[in-house]
Amino acid sequence: MLDKCYLQPAFAVEMLLEKLSGYITSVEKQRIEECYGRVAASDILSPEDLPGFARATMDGYALKAADTYAAKETIPACLKISGEVFMGENPGFEIISGQAAKIPTGGMIPPGADAVVMLEHTRSISDDTIEILEPVAQGENAIKRDGDTRKGSVVIRKGRKLRAQDVGALAGTGITSIDVFKKPIVNLLSTGDEIVPADCRVSQGQVRDINSFTLSGLISEEGGVVYKKWILKDDYNTIRNCVEQSLQEADLIVIIGGTSAGTRDMTAKIIDDIGNPGVLFHGVAVKPCKPLIGGIVQDKPVLGLPGHPAAAVVSFNLFIAPLIRRLSGADLSPRFMKTVRARMGKCIVSAAGREDHIRVYVEHREGELEAIPIFGKSGLITTLVNADGIVIIPSSKLGIDKGESVTVNLF
Amino acid sequence: MLDKCYLQPAFAVEMLLEKLSGYITSVEKQRIEECYGRVAASDILSPEDLPGFARATMDGYALKAADTYAAKETIPACLKISGEVFMGENPGFEIISGQAAKIPTGGMIPPGADAVVMLEHTRSISDDTIEILEPVAQGENAIKRDGDTRKGSVVIRKGRKLRAQDVGALAGTGITSIDVFKKPIVNLLSTGDEIVPADCRVSQGQVRDINSFTLSGLISEEGGVVYKKWILKDDYNTIRNCVEQSLQEADLIVIIGGTSAGTRDMTAKIIDDIGNPGVLFHGVAVKPCKPLIGGIVQDKPVLGLPGHPAAAVVSFNLFIAPLIRRLSGADLSPRFMKTVRARMGKCIVSAAGREDHIRVYVEHREGELEAIPIFGKSGLITTLVNADGIVIIPSSKLGIDKGESVTVNLF
Repeated sequence: MLDKCYLQPAFAVEMLLEKLSGYITSVEKQRIEECYGRVAASDILSPEDLPGFARATMDGYALKAADTYAAKETIPACLKISGEVFMGENPGFEIISGQAAKIPTGGMIPPGADAVVMLEHTRSISDDTIEILEPVAQGENAIKRDGDTRKGSVVIRKGRKLRAQDVGALAGTGITSIDVFKKPIVNLLSTGDEIVPADCRVSQGQVRDINSFTLSGLISEEGGVVYKKWILKDDYNTIRNCVEQSLQEADLIVIIGGTSAGTRDMTAKIIDDIGNPGVLFHGVAVKPCKPLIGGIVQDKPVLGLPGHPAAAVVSFNLFIAPLIRRLSGADLSPRFMKTVRARMGKCIVSAAGREDHIRVYVEHREGELEAIPIFGKSGLITTLVNADGIVIIPSSKLGIDKGESVTVNLF
Repeated sequence: MLDKCYLQPAFAVEMLLEKLSGYITSVEKQRIEECYGRVAASDILSPEDLPGFARATMDGYALKAADTYAAKETIPACLKISGEVFMGENPGFEIISGQAAKIPTGGMIPPGADAVVMLEHTRSISDDTIEILEPVAQGENAIKRDGDTRKGSVVIRKGRKLRAQDVGALAGTGITSIDVFKKPIVNLLSTGDEIVPADCRVSQGQVRDINSFTLSGLISEEGGVVYKKWILKDDYNTIRNCVEQSLQEADLIVIIGGTSAGTRDMTAKIIDDIGNPGVLFHGVAVKPCKPLIGGIVQDKPVLGLPGHPAAAVVSFNLFIAPLIRRLSGADLSPRFMKTVRARMGKCIVSAAGREDHIRVYVEHREGELEAIPIFGKSGLITTLVNADGIVIIPSSKLGIDKGESVTVNLF
């Protein structure tokens, strides 16, 4: 066990990720319908050209562009209509110089033709003759064969978390199932003699489990899956047994609670007692999750979270989310946080050396967005219900002035 | 049917929403574990105070604040330890002046006590005597009974789309199931003689269905559910029958394709032929979804989308997403789009009177974000795979200069 100290969170999470560098969940094959939000386990190559033929992007006439170069309204090019292209069909004829074929948007451009002239730039002379009123360039109003994707090229890179359009692209190339990384499994252990399940009546001194509900939602959004949720008494053997069982079942173990000094130390002791390297750090320089514990046992990350609802959410953002991304094989960070810029509605003071995560709600005011800090204790879940996001005051800053421009990380 | 014209998209969607003002999906009861992302169908009131008792927020001693007002390091207040509070238990004793009780973070503050002094500001004298080294104010280091939520107050407002912490707050107040609006049901009809299912081999002239996969993912993210997906030939009776069946099954019908002039007009004719008011608009001043059709039949919205992959996504953002929010009973707009600010990497020209939706990817460059426009044809799905989001050029602008600051709406 390293010395207890308050690490900067970026350093602490880096330490955890570094020790886990080899570990990733295994791979499973899934139908693409099930792959929204899943992570590609390998580069996915296109098995064919997309489209498999040159297509028109406008209603008009397919022809040789060279036949139109001299065309203008007053001296149109006169071409023979040699056929018509129907949607979804191979035209079955070729275009030679002097010919044109009627073609709908999306239709297959016949061999020999290399451009499409828009219907609006033509004039019908007879059933089999058409005048072209404007020149078109080679390739105009057309998508060439393989214009979208070439056979053998990468459609989706390994590590991409698939968005709707990525699944669309797979369908387009005829790929209907792919290898994805299994969702990382998380076990949540809510500890505390005062905690009772949400569906229980509370006696004086007791409170219901909130954090496992908040964390389950966040974990599932991030691409993990909560396998088991426990509520445990503050008892060494009870918690230790449950951590040991979870190490068999889950990829990440999160122990929540133990907000008082004695129980915090018990969580750390259990992590250390079960295996090497045990606790990597105990305490981070972040408000509101200072007493956070990060450890690794049997090559799996084990976190000890403070029990305050706001602390649970900030711990999720700083530690659980990057761990899930790493365990799921996804690109290590979301390329950009989803944010809005706003002006801070009130002055906030922060201690040097500590990163402050301030809950804010955001209002439209005089055509601008204003972030209003919510100054409730971090033990209050309603402060999170009222919040739209979090403003981070870096450890190097002593606060934020009223009116200062800030980035709000939206929930 | 109104005259065919190119409406501004904000006006067009407003017209659709207005005609639907009464219509909303029905209500169902769900366990809160199933309610992430669901929409509350009524104001949800707290059945009790949260917490149900005053709690300590620090490890220390519960006492009467007045007993500490004169305390300092050199002249400490000396109090009798009258008991100890254990987590999750009603202490069962009262504090009178001159007394203190040991209390852990989260413990119930005994009747009579009105503050908690931190352990660090005390000095132990004997087993039953403690010295207080600093004064505390009334309520210090404590959450009062109902400090989080008061019995009868609104925990979650009707129309809120529940986030993780909202479900946590419900659990905290002992609410384990709530009324939510049913997910709006969407039927997707992909039309076109050239379209084949994703798992089919394509012949020359044919392409696979892409849009129903892209739209299914987007619709489900937004809180809707795709009930049926069809691939239909461009045939009046086939499409009409399918729309009529869908009107029995779904809350929103989306007809995709018919990119060529003839088939577009067929979609509009079908919407008009089935019922009143039929087509509300045919054409919006947006690139790339100009030929979009919006209509209402039997009080249900029916959209006709152009078949290009990029047009399908922009049509989703502008029309399908707001319709799903309205049908699902959610607050009408997401309060803020998830965006990043970036500098435009290239100059872009746009036509006046038309809203341009430009696909971009975003790069970190010299400490700033740069949005690089992707200039592929809107028929190419890979342009969407490579994109991180969309920059909108409003119809009043003629373009964006290189280096100009823009808002990127992230996918």
